[in-house]
Amino acid sequence: MFVSASVTCFFAPVIDTPKNSGSIGVGFTIDKGVEVRLADRTTLNGEKIRMPTLEYILSKLGYEGGVEIRTDLPLGCGFGLSGAIALASALEVNERRNLNLSLFQIADLAHEAEVLNRTGLGDVTTQCHGGFVVRKDALTPSMCRVDKFLWDIEMDFLIMGELKTSEILEGNLKEIYKTGVDCLKKFLKKPSIHNLFKVSKEFTLRCGFADDDVIDAIEAVESNGGLASMIMLGKGVFALNGDVLRELKGFYTKSRVVCYGIRKSL
Amino acid sequence: MFVSASVTCFFAPVIDTPKNSGSIGVGFTIDKGVEVRLADRTTLNGEKIRMPTLEYILSKLGYEGGVEIRTDLPLGCGFGLSGAIALASALEVNERRNLNLSLFQIADLAHEAEVLNRTGLGDVTTQCHGGFVVRKDALTPSMCRVDKFLWDIEMDFLIMGELKTSEILEGNLKEIYKTGVDCLKKFLKKPSIHNLFKVSKEFTLRCGFADDDVIDAIEAVESNGGLASMIMLGKGVFALNGDVLRELKGFYTKSRVVCYGIRKSL
Repeated sequence: MFVSASVTCFFAPVIDTPKNSGSIGVGFTIDKGVEVRLADRTTLNGEKIRMPTLEYILSKLGYEGGVEIRTDLPLGCGFGLSGAIALASALEVNERRNLNLSLFQIADLAHEAEVLNRTGLGDVTTQCHGGFVVRKDALTPSMCRVDKFLWDIEMDFLIMGELKTSEILEGNLKEIYKTGVDCLKKFLKKPSIHNLFKVSKEFTLRCGFADDDVIDAIEAVESNGGLASMIMLGKGVFALNGDVLRELKGFYTKSRVVCYGIRKSL
Repeated sequence: MFVSASVTCFFAPVIDTPKNSGSIGVGFTIDKGVEVRLADRTTLNGEKIRMPTLEYILSKLGYEGGVEIRTDLPLGCGFGLSGAIALASALEVNERRNLNLSLFQIADLAHEAEVLNRTGLGDVTTQCHGGFVVRKDALTPSMCRVDKFLWDIEMDFLIMGELKTSEILEGNLKEIYKTGVDCLKKFLKKPSIHNLFKVSKEFTLRCGFADDDVIDAIEAVESNGGLASMIMLGKGVFALNGDVLRELKGFYTKSRVVCYGIRKSL
């Protein structure tokens, strides 16, 4: 099973019970992500790994084996890989074991695993729908109303380091929430790709998430005629016409935004 | 723009204002559908055609040209092509004219066009989500709660004639509604592909939609070890392991169920 990586542009987080946790905001799915197959032991690109979010959902499904995970993207950098791995693994178990659970039953379990482990709040919802996904409720995927835009573009990404989602999610979320809700209103007033970048950057700056490296990368893109903002949450940026990011230090990749996030492995 | 054809397995219709019209039930999207491009005049596989549902949505978008439609499937036979054409055309206008409407804003317009012209009630919602889509509300796409199953199978189809959706939708819908809601409950108690066929066939028989040709085709599949039910609404059947349908009189085709219904044209 393949599940897309997803990048959050801006968000308004709520942490409560798993069903009542989530984040309002905008994120998008890309053509890169994770490929998962059932296996005896859990490995990531061939290396043994332990992932509490994954272990939680596998145990909820009564599956005692592991999964073989392949990805071209780095973990812990804002690509929503913990959610993608949980979702892809659960979909794979569901199919191989004929559990006949629905997509949103599985998505709710993956979301619960994410919330309890503080690894993500909105990625699973974005991955279930695909495209540029507007999450209108901070709720579990099955309850979260969404809308989407199908802009067909390629994005450039530069990752300059790790950033622990859990640390931000342990902090004071009220101010972030207010800023995120405000930014969503501004985006929906004029929903265009240009305004998405504008609002996302405003969110990043108002929340004080961006350090000098991130700001330098955004400015490098802008001074070359592109658009950029910070990946929520990673020490990195996403950009349109961001070829210049290749020249900066870090992990660079390019990927198309896809309007669906889940597919059978090739 | 490509939008999948969709087939309804069973349904519970409600006709009211467009926003409050729709159908509860289950449908699925397939790998065949419609390809649409903007053009001066509206044509279907090269032949001039008039389609009120399409004209309605194009005029709502302020677009005065036509569209070039290509499809391998027959119109008016239960493949949800009127909805697919309306949706694909509106998505194409949206993109080419930079209208920046969201998917569900467009879907609601396509649904409105379908309801007012009595050409469909649930196809647009199914096409927006993709896969085996459970529609939980008889409402416009943006308000309709859904769930989905991602069973990866191929279906056989046999079309033996046309059947006007509008004639059925003018009739007494109350009994159909009750039967449809009852069938959805039965399906969700044990959501498997096998039970989907069982419940769908029960719905068809209880509503009295199937004529002798349809019943003969279903029985031919079943006596060869397959599963089959009637296309809602068309004089035709959909089947799993329905190779025997090739031998019967009519338009035969085979197509994989896809878990997303919308994509850019190749």
